[in-house]
Amino acid sequence: MKLNHRGLLIVLSGPSGVGKGTVRKALFNKKGHKFNYSVSMTTRRPRPGEVDGVDYFFVSREQFLKNIEEDKMLEWAEFVGNYYGTPKEAVDKLLDEGKEVVLEIEVEGALQVRAKMPEAVFIFIVPPEREVLYARLRSRGTEPKELIDQRIAKADREFLLAHKYDYIVVNDDVDKAAERIIAIIKAEHSKTERSIYKYMKIIGGEKDEE
Amino acid sequence: MKLNHRGLLIVLSGPSGVGKGTVRKALFNKKGHKFNYSVSMTTRRPRPGEVDGVDYFFVSREQFLKNIEEDKMLEWAEFVGNYYGTPKEAVDKLLDEGKEVVLEIEVEGALQVRAKMPEAVFIFIVPPEREVLYARLRSRGTEPKELIDQRIAKADREFLLAHKYDYIVVNDDVDKAAERIIAIIKAEHSKTERSIYKYMKIIGGEKDEE
Repeated sequence: MKLNHRGLLIVLSGPSGVGKGTVRKALFNKKGHKFNYSVSMTTRRPRPGEVDGVDYFFVSREQFLKNIEEDKMLEWAEFVGNYYGTPKEAVDKLLDEGKEVVLEIEVEGALQVRAKMPEAVFIFIVPPEREVLYARLRSRGTEPKELIDQRIAKADREFLLAHKYDYIVVNDDVDKAAERIIAIIKAEHSKTERSIYKYMKIIGGEKDEE
Repeated sequence: MKLNHRGLLIVLSGPSGVGKGTVRKALFNKKGHKFNYSVSMTTRRPRPGEVDGVDYFFVSREQFLKNIEEDKMLEWAEFVGNYYGTPKEAVDKLLDEGKEVVLEIEVEGALQVRAKMPEAVFIFIVPPEREVLYARLRSRGTEPKELIDQRIAKADREFLLAHKYDYIVVNDDVDKAAERIIAIIKAEHSKTERSIYKYMKIIGGEKDEE
């Protein structure tokens, strides 16, 4: 019963450089929808303008490894020497309160969540063309060429994992991409396996308290 | 390959009296969406105001039975002495042209379509309360009490078939119900199994011609 009142977990993922963060922000700015964002944890250094507790929780490598050991991470990945992940407790708490939670995470992490929480909604964000993504990665002035090449190689491998997701959303236009995600979330709420409990209350004659 | 360019078949169904026709009309009036409606065929007499070829194709019992024999019906059902069904050819033609086709049909017929075209999207429309549906059925002045009682009994049996559908949409408000269906259709277009061909073209470097 509890399960049916649990919030929806929405996993936004896709290759690095596809604009996951921008799409997520556009999604959160849509009127009439209330989403909760689970802030990720990382051991990498903040980029200029990034704020601890908002963009990421910036922690030491030692602290991150301790969290993994204590099974406190819903998902995590190491990438070019840094760890990235999602603290589990905060997500569970929001879902138990019936809230919608959005995770914006790397492909490797999304597949870990898929294994642990298959009832979540998995959305793969892709560029309108492959070259658009490469260009975005190259234009990041803050990173050395070697690192950019690694990200491009990784994106190429990740493109092949689209079939592991429920939905593919093209980020040709940030606002349109956010609209597509809103439609997906609405539709997921109407899915029979998610709405049958509410439906049985209607048919059983009980008035819905929502 | 052809399959991927085929239009989406959307099946709106639900117990008699739930307002399928009204919801379908509201859906078709939504701006920015182009749907094709497949007109059903029936042997029942037109109600006041109903137009042949618009509300239904009104045909003789003989003609209808001939169509069934010649496998020209996508689905059909007999209800209180009359036949209702969907001519197959028109639907196939529209889908082959890549168009969105909406069927508004009885529960029995919807399950026949499910067996023949499992790739279609099946939406079960339900009333906000069971009594709302009973009241609607009772208020149809054109039908004798006996027929209304039969419809109510049938609705009660059909309520138990919701789990055979992909989505449950509550018709608490016609416009809201239509909005939920729009979201479902948009989301279905983003579903990985429907969009992976288009996606592979993007990733393969081919520009999308749409």
